[in-house]
Amino acid sequence: MLKEILQRGQQLADAALERLLPPGTQYPPSIHQAMRHSVFAGGKRLRPILCMEAARMIHAGAGAVSASASAEPDGLPAGIADLGAALEMLHTYSLIHDDLPALDNDDLRRGRPTCHVAFGEATAILAGDALQTYAYEVLSRLSCPAEARVRIIEVIAQATGTIDGMIGGQVLDLEAEHTRPDAKTLEYIHRSKTGALISASLISGCLYAKATSTELQRVREFGRAAGLAFQIADDILDVTQTSEQLGKTAGKDAAVEKVTYPSLYGLATSEQMAAQLITQACAALDSFGPRADTLKAIARYLVERKK
Amino acid sequence: MLKEILQRGQQLADAALERLLPPGTQYPPSIHQAMRHSVFAGGKRLRPILCMEAARMIHAGAGAVSASASAEPDGLPAGIADLGAALEMLHTYSLIHDDLPALDNDDLRRGRPTCHVAFGEATAILAGDALQTYAYEVLSRLSCPAEARVRIIEVIAQATGTIDGMIGGQVLDLEAEHTRPDAKTLEYIHRSKTGALISASLISGCLYAKATSTELQRVREFGRAAGLAFQIADDILDVTQTSEQLGKTAGKDAAVEKVTYPSLYGLATSEQMAAQLITQACAALDSFGPRADTLKAIARYLVERKK
Repeated sequence: MLKEILQRGQQLADAALERLLPPGTQYPPSIHQAMRHSVFAGGKRLRPILCMEAARMIHAGAGAVSASASAEPDGLPAGIADLGAALEMLHTYSLIHDDLPALDNDDLRRGRPTCHVAFGEATAILAGDALQTYAYEVLSRLSCPAEARVRIIEVIAQATGTIDGMIGGQVLDLEAEHTRPDAKTLEYIHRSKTGALISASLISGCLYAKATSTELQRVREFGRAAGLAFQIADDILDVTQTSEQLGKTAGKDAAVEKVTYPSLYGLATSEQMAAQLITQACAALDSFGPRADTLKAIARYLVERKK
Repeated sequence: MLKEILQRGQQLADAALERLLPPGTQYPPSIHQAMRHSVFAGGKRLRPILCMEAARMIHAGAGAVSASASAEPDGLPAGIADLGAALEMLHTYSLIHDDLPALDNDDLRRGRPTCHVAFGEATAILAGDALQTYAYEVLSRLSCPAEARVRIIEVIAQATGTIDGMIGGQVLDLEAEHTRPDAKTLEYIHRSKTGALISASLISGCLYAKATSTELQRVREFGRAAGLAFQIADDILDVTQTSEQLGKTAGKDAAVEKVTYPSLYGLATSEQMAAQLITQACAALDSFGPRADTLKAIARYLVERKK
């Protein structure tokens, strides 16, 4: 059941990305091929899926499925996949830049050569830039009222920015390689580097589906806890899985003596912390009743997955 | 007269940037210091000035100055400086990334060490990223109706993107170092790398000031010609000025055997072409009468400046 939902979400996101991204033949071809190389490298499409499932939950509650002629067949608000695709473009831009020699210097991502290995460093920098730019172009044209579009753009820009956002987390993560951070800093890094965009994916989906401020607050609590749990699970996987299983270099955190949840708390305690956060996340959605079942199942899957 | 207008515009843009950008003490400090290092490196603020002057021209024509209590003292629509600041953030992000070792590898910009020289390559990449992100956050909160905001965001994202936009021009410019482009490709590079954002600065100012589609079309023609003239003038300055005069490495185009207007057409013909484009640009604004005098004067200044 969950597997089918994830597969269907992945297909919807992939189809939107395929439709929205310029073809690899578009002039100048090198940059468009580099953008597609990284976007279509077998991602799980977690952020689009969270966005769409949050929107579906709100949309169903508003009784809009039967009332609206424009709803997509499976209870999603029409056009929501474009928002999901924009979120995936932003996630991919961050991966391309994180992998650069000056940052994490990774040659392998999802089992394929990283963008700068395949296209050179200059093109990789520009391909990351372009995916960020193009995400905002897509967001500016979403099929929801302009008021919702500007709120969505604001939420996403904040979540990917320097203050409690993705770039801020990446800066601290880089600096942490030299300055062994404490538990508080490590939590800050995880919350901002990964958690913020995961939360923004959920919140933007809710805004698209016209959520009330009470609904937004509950989903925000869910995202805050689930986002941190997801990153703790990532730390755990780096220790417990092989490179082949992960599709990227395993054991890299330990190799660079990076502080992670397992290195700070041990493996067993880290697993307990992730499980507790998921319980907390799911509790935040209880008032939605069975409509929240899918999001809850995805949250549990996030910490139980093997890659 | 023109000098005062340019100075006043620069002050307005600087004040907005100072107000909008996080302080250098904001956590994490390194990234905010790097952003400010490059933003406050003595730029001319040409894009904010063009944006504000286009808005003033439209605003005055709409008779809005006397009618609107919210207009700023000098006939500008209230809050327009924030739009100008966002344009300057985008311009600065492109300069930071262009200067990187993998791209143009420039150590000096406006007479100061470039961002990666002062803060390291990783921080420079992220500071460029963050200025782009932050520009969209500012745009999402502009003091104009949401409908205008999403149009402004769309216009700016397109102008800085890969298709006929800034990144596309940069890609071709890099590739041109190896493949000696013809005249048509050189014009494409200049139009997209520099001209597109200059045009978008003018157009977004017009959208902010509620221009009609006829007015937009005239300003678009002006921007198209003036933007190309500006870049031809830049090519000419690289040949005729010293590094000290320019505040950056002079003669660099010739050193890397880069194709430029002077190398393709000679200096005298290039100067004639720039002058012709300015005449053409100014003609596009004739129907605005004396309200267009400032924009016309700026256009002429663009090709007569010494740095």
